[in-house]
Amino acid sequence: MTESDRSTLFDQLFARTVQETLEEPGYGSWRSITAPDAVSLSFGFPYPESFPETALLESLGAVLEEEGSHALQYGGGEYVDSLREGVLEREAVHGIEATTDELLLTNGATHAIDGVAQTFLDHGDEVFVEAPTFMGTLSLFGNYGVEVTGFSLDDDGLDVSAVETALEERREREAPMPKLVYTIPNFQNPTGTTLSRERRERLLELAAEYEFIIVEDDAYGELRFDGDDVTPLSALDDEGWVVRMGTFSKTIAPGVRTGWLVGHEEIIEQISHISAGGTNTFTQSVLGRYFDAGHYEPVVEELLEAYEGRRDAMLESLAAHLPPGADWTEPEGGFFVWVTLPEGIDSGELLPEAAEEGVTYLPGSHFFADSGGERSLRLSFSHVTAAEMDRGVAALARATEAAMDE
Amino acid sequence: MTESDRSTLFDQLFARTVQETLEEPGYGSWRSITAPDAVSLSFGFPYPESFPETALLESLGAVLEEEGSHALQYGGGEYVDSLREGVLEREAVHGIEATTDELLLTNGATHAIDGVAQTFLDHGDEVFVEAPTFMGTLSLFGNYGVEVTGFSLDDDGLDVSAVETALEERREREAPMPKLVYTIPNFQNPTGTTLSRERRERLLELAAEYEFIIVEDDAYGELRFDGDDVTPLSALDDEGWVVRMGTFSKTIAPGVRTGWLVGHEEIIEQISHISAGGTNTFTQSVLGRYFDAGHYEPVVEELLEAYEGRRDAMLESLAAHLPPGADWTEPEGGFFVWVTLPEGIDSGELLPEAAEEGVTYLPGSHFFADSGGERSLRLSFSHVTAAEMDRGVAALARATEAAMDE
Repeated sequence: MTESDRSTLFDQLFARTVQETLEEPGYGSWRSITAPDAVSLSFGFPYPESFPETALLESLGAVLEEEGSHALQYGGGEYVDSLREGVLEREAVHGIEATTDELLLTNGATHAIDGVAQTFLDHGDEVFVEAPTFMGTLSLFGNYGVEVTGFSLDDDGLDVSAVETALEERREREAPMPKLVYTIPNFQNPTGTTLSRERRERLLELAAEYEFIIVEDDAYGELRFDGDDVTPLSALDDEGWVVRMGTFSKTIAPGVRTGWLVGHEEIIEQISHISAGGTNTFTQSVLGRYFDAGHYEPVVEELLEAYEGRRDAMLESLAAHLPPGADWTEPEGGFFVWVTLPEGIDSGELLPEAAEEGVTYLPGSHFFADSGGERSLRLSFSHVTAAEMDRGVAALARATEAAMDE
Repeated sequence: MTESDRSTLFDQLFARTVQETLEEPGYGSWRSITAPDAVSLSFGFPYPESFPETALLESLGAVLEEEGSHALQYGGGEYVDSLREGVLEREAVHGIEATTDELLLTNGATHAIDGVAQTFLDHGDEVFVEAPTFMGTLSLFGNYGVEVTGFSLDDDGLDVSAVETALEERREREAPMPKLVYTIPNFQNPTGTTLSRERRERLLELAAEYEFIIVEDDAYGELRFDGDDVTPLSALDDEGWVVRMGTFSKTIAPGVRTGWLVGHEEIIEQISHISAGGTNTFTQSVLGRYFDAGHYEPVVEELLEAYEGRRDAMLESLAAHLPPGADWTEPEGGFFVWVTLPEGIDSGELLPEAAEEGVTYLPGSHFFADSGGERSLRLSFSHVTAAEMDRGVAALARATEAAMDE
């Protein structure tokens, strides 16, 4: 049997959704967008000095000294419970009253979204998302063979009245209704915008009327450095329409790969039921101890100050360098600014020139299920220093101006 | 809306396979089999003194000192590569020549099996398994709505000629063929039996002829304390029919929740493609350093000696206490002995009496997709001391004898 016969054979054995996406880029394909000498504004990496290395090491030492083998056995020891309590306390700070039966620890936020998808989605089901939205979630929904419909955002986040119109229209013509509406309400990835309180309330009314689950991805909710908290969808919901997820990737470190789900007890039970295998109690115990020792809140306070400064630096650089006709969002938290280039400039086509000038970014098209975002791009202010950011934004401006002159 | 209306509503929103399994016990339901004063021989827990606590703590310290923030960032640092190399070296010891493109690190072995299932299985597909087999895998396949057919085992493992007969018969009547054949070839869970070299070769020939993937779950392969290694299916396969998985849950600690997949590059690529989110680079870095420091092999050597002693103690206790008519397997590695009770005794019905007498175990029926195993049960010799084991086996014998007298 030749190599190519064999490849064809495997293709035939793959599941239907895998066969349908054989030619598409997989999860994480965007990671290839790098250039050796360019400033990377591409990725939502926390800045490395923010990682609490010493506290994590101390925490592991304390866990092993106090709990010994329990922390390493199936199920873990009491510090896993400490982590659950820590998460619920933080959720309570944002107005969410949940019990341990309404909480599930996960291997990160994407694993959490995957659990929701596996629990609710059949091939051909309908899902509504923001357009643009997090490319990882788009890739994940692609694995389930569902129909993804995007709705635009403005300064108040997702255009909920457009969602309402679509729902009405679908009901009228007896078209399939969405099972899930996926939103990143705070400092949205990639636009940085926040969904207003009024729209949150309206979206919840629509969920109850049209019977869909709102997936509230609050990966950035802890990182508001400006303005007032907007109550989470989950805290406004007393009927169980919202399943909500959070992560420590941004507030502790991505490598700890630990997140959580909060939702109606029955939904959490089913997601837990369908989840195969355990989670990482070694890491969870370290984080539980980290919470118990009081490390979490002061570190987040430091992060807020740092990210506010980085956001300010990014906005200053954009104002200083970008040519007329360019526009950008002004986030009150999170990691990202969404830039719209002057008319006629395609951010995907511009990327090689921009990399040549000394900057990389994620072109807007990555954040759309179908077409869209050709004039836009995402810049991250989370990772590099203010000076590098300025160098990167200046490079983006030079590449843009050169393209405008063509 | 009342609570019961809402529950019914969620039920309707759930995916088809979730709806089909709403009434069934979920992953890990067997964990509820405990009794406060009884010796637990139920679970495949490593004995806690085996966990290398000091070495793990030292490893984290060294990782953070040498790599700092890299270990905690997305993607991890170089110690993640060390772990990949460590895994490949161990695989090579067992005769498997694989490259990093043929390897995927996972969040444990069950996560690895789930990745294979998600990549290959559509609702209604056929899967062949050993009967009995690991209950976690049965639960996992249940999430995919597939048809699971079990084939019996004897002292040489899976009855491959029965598999062959079934394949021939299916081909003749043009019935659906299996996409996956799942086997635990070494010290099988739950029977402790090992698949013979001859049968491995025959199973591979069948895979090539009938075009199915062999899923080689080698969770216990590192733990042979008796007899000679039998070459892994993966090492006998030069065409890519075998996808193989391993785990550190038994050789380092369950809490580190780290495993791996080895398979044909194209298959590994697709599994990686469909896997949502990253894995835990914090833990992977610690384990990579643990390997680099040379901790792994000497710890496994100690484990072999310890588990051999435990297996001997278990067999002695069984011979000393169980009444005539009882029978059991004699494993050359791993954690488990499979006991068949005298005719007329149902291991599920016996459990409450056995718990009362002072022992718990997993009734055989847990390891079958449909019916089966009523006279059998799994005992684990991995977790408790020889003295406790003896107390537990004596309690099992008392309960059995009482049931025989009824």
